[in-house]
Amino acid sequence: MTATAAGIETVSTSRAHGGVQGVYRHMSRETKTAMTFAVFVPPHGAGAKLPVVWYLSGLTCTHANCMDKGEYRRLASELGLMLVLPDTSPRGDEVPDEPDNWQFGKGAGFYLDAIEAPYAENYRMYSYVAEELPQIIAENFPADMGRQAVFGHSMGGHGALTLALKNPGRFRSASAFAPIVKPSVADWSRPALTKYLGPDEAAWRAYDTCLLIEDGARFPAFLVDQGAADPFLETGLMPHLLQEACAGAGIALTLTLREGYDHSYNFISTFMEDHLRWHAARLK
Amino acid sequence: MTATAAGIETVSTSRAHGGVQGVYRHMSRETKTAMTFAVFVPPHGAGAKLPVVWYLSGLTCTHANCMDKGEYRRLASELGLMLVLPDTSPRGDEVPDEPDNWQFGKGAGFYLDAIEAPYAENYRMYSYVAEELPQIIAENFPADMGRQAVFGHSMGGHGALTLALKNPGRFRSASAFAPIVKPSVADWSRPALTKYLGPDEAAWRAYDTCLLIEDGARFPAFLVDQGAADPFLETGLMPHLLQEACAGAGIALTLTLREGYDHSYNFISTFMEDHLRWHAARLK
Repeated sequence: MTATAAGIETVSTSRAHGGVQGVYRHMSRETKTAMTFAVFVPPHGAGAKLPVVWYLSGLTCTHANCMDKGEYRRLASELGLMLVLPDTSPRGDEVPDEPDNWQFGKGAGFYLDAIEAPYAENYRMYSYVAEELPQIIAENFPADMGRQAVFGHSMGGHGALTLALKNPGRFRSASAFAPIVKPSVADWSRPALTKYLGPDEAAWRAYDTCLLIEDGARFPAFLVDQGAADPFLETGLMPHLLQEACAGAGIALTLTLREGYDHSYNFISTFMEDHLRWHAARLK
Repeated sequence: MTATAAGIETVSTSRAHGGVQGVYRHMSRETKTAMTFAVFVPPHGAGAKLPVVWYLSGLTCTHANCMDKGEYRRLASELGLMLVLPDTSPRGDEVPDEPDNWQFGKGAGFYLDAIEAPYAENYRMYSYVAEELPQIIAENFPADMGRQAVFGHSMGGHGALTLALKNPGRFRSASAFAPIVKPSVADWSRPALTKYLGPDEAAWRAYDTCLLIEDGARFPAFLVDQGAADPFLETGLMPHLLQEACAGAGIALTLTLREGYDHSYNFISTFMEDHLRWHAARLK
């Protein structure tokens, strides 16, 4: 199948928990590549407009990982939430990449707009997720764009929190599973930020939850869950930095350390219900 | 990692929904290969013995497909059920196979003991699932082997129903998602039965739900769900044949055609809760 500039192409649809799990493809003006995304539309009455919950995935993932393993459909149907799952980077042979590096390039877009060559041409995941894909959702799905929420995992948790802080009027709620709260200091994101944004760390502040808060960005409340057995806890995630940033800024942070849980979809799927109920309560 | 004849090796464990999702490997005396399986152990008190629910997967699957997409852990934890997910065939370079044929060989063991060369040496999935793996579960997990249930999908639905009919004293309940109810006539199983069991169809009767019932095998009740939009409904699954067989044999069949559902894990995960509650009620 080929995506056309004119619109979106349906890759697949499948009934699930009373709704429809679909996968779609389109030509992106931001990434200049074909982009694939997943949308779950819960059962709804004719003409209804549904609140939209964005789920941003972590390093190495596509739209498919959480679609397969996230266990969100039962709850999304019960709560009447549409879920949108974008990819994590541009794709294709022409896209610059470091194939042996899972922390940079394809699968590692970090929800930013690159400014350094040769990445600036395609790596525009911030504008893709913040601007282009919402337009496509609004035009092609029964979405109430006045009611949006955002959450994500790890790199996608970073994406969710920064997207909310940069667009507080658009999102009614934001949450994250094991987010990278300060990519400017974390070991697995500093090299990527350097290559996408250059060595001047001033440019990084727009894509760093803790630094955005330091620079005055605000959001009413965050829900964050973090596995206590997560191998990336100390060097990649560092939730105490978010705690400090929120405490000093009047942001109501509900942060829970989950004993025994790791960084996998077993952790995400276990706490998916808490997060979807958090968003549903704020999207009513 | 290498499996040893002496016991089982832990490939991975991960906390999920309060329990532990594990993957294990061992050298099988039946298949003469290393075999991988998944076990979910729900939260339980010290010294508790848990009822065991066997899930048998369909064509092309390993232990991992339902582990990733089946959405059983929340319910299994709530209901206190241990789930065991075997692989669907022997694996390894030395195992005879038709690599381009997804309906035969690796990933397509059909839960039978092959008698034809060269398949008889390794393709012993009936004895593996009926005899060898239960011993391993009894020895290595907190299992109450007096309380067992079995279910599965497609080829695994065939496996579940035939396993129950051949061992009615062992299983308290049996159910299936979109089972191959009569593999001796279905288009996607006849070639496999011919190659595993030979052209004499008398040998096939021991591995065919409808023919087992015709030959006098009995089980109290079956729960079967079938997607009405399943592309294999007419030529591969044919649930009306099971209806006829059960009606003539006094087997209480609860068969529901689910409008709009296909053959995928979206169908399985949607009705997983109904099946686990069916088994839990009979395992109390």
